[in-house]
Amino acid sequence: MKGYIQVYTGNGKGKTTAAIGLAVRAVGAGKKVFFAQFVKGMIYSEVEVIQNLSSDITIKQYGLDCFIYNAPTKADIDAARNGFNEVSEIILSGKYDVIVLDEANIAIYYKLFGIEELIDLLKRKPEQTEIIVTGRYAPDELIEFADLVSEIKEIKHYYTKGIQARIGIEY
Amino acid sequence: MKGYIQVYTGNGKGKTTAAIGLAVRAVGAGKKVFFAQFVKGMIYSEVEVIQNLSSDITIKQYGLDCFIYNAPTKADIDAARNGFNEVSEIILSGKYDVIVLDEANIAIYYKLFGIEELIDLLKRKPEQTEIIVTGRYAPDELIEFADLVSEIKEIKHYYTKGIQARIGIEY
Repeated sequence: MKGYIQVYTGNGKGKTTAAIGLAVRAVGAGKKVFFAQFVKGMIYSEVEVIQNLSSDITIKQYGLDCFIYNAPTKADIDAARNGFNEVSEIILSGKYDVIVLDEANIAIYYKLFGIEELIDLLKRKPEQTEIIVTGRYAPDELIEFADLVSEIKEIKHYYTKGIQARIGIEY
Repeated sequence: MKGYIQVYTGNGKGKTTAAIGLAVRAVGAGKKVFFAQFVKGMIYSEVEVIQNLSSDITIKQYGLDCFIYNAPTKADIDAARNGFNEVSEIILSGKYDVIVLDEANIAIYYKLFGIEELIDLLKRKPEQTEIIVTGRYAPDELIEFADLVSEIKEIKHYYTKGIQARIGIEY
């Protein structure tokens, strides 16, 4: 079965959650899944559940913390660079059927790694591997290159009412 | 903790998958989750995984099959009506922290039940209960009433290239 490139972008809630859902579904069908989280280094509730779900799923975080409201530090850049190198090997190994690059768009937006190197990597992926890329600000080059792109638009969000992120719902 | 109403709508891929991700995250945070699927009656890969995930999550399907390209039959209507009644009791019982009404928008679009009765039910939900409603064609009344609305837009989809739905990826 041929694998494709899927992108979930936009400013609305649901990008990472959709990727988690895809990972769960893939594992349910007996596929091997690697879930790489860039930028984020916080303990999300889902990380623990996903890791305990099945030995067919591996989740690894390549971020230190949520720097989104600040500028990335050298440590953030190193973590993302290390992540990109590790994930490149994982993709090229052909050992996983589905690989999620969660928040890779954000990593590119903050220049933690480049869009050219991501596309170069995607071009070299094994035929059968499905790749899911998430994060707002998907670069035009990625949208052009991808097979499927869903843009999640915020129509309405309770953050604007001053409601804080809640454990088990937002993280 | 106060619970809100979240809606995932639009014509792009990722609505049900986002709801699955939310359910997994909530279970990871120790919440009790009820996942009701309207309209769909097919065996999705995720159903089995979700059901095996934890005893804190219950998934139930109230659809017979995917009638989306045909008109709903009497049996479809009965299944949805029965589902709506059962889910109403579940919501009002206060036993679940997060309740997903997957494809409820489609059920309303096909007049399997009414938007007025859904909103009436949502108004009576226990304070702490979080409700997630998915499906394209979310009615305006629901968008107005909800606290969070994400519209998932199809920017690009490989279906248009003639690629069929694949097990472990689309279902």
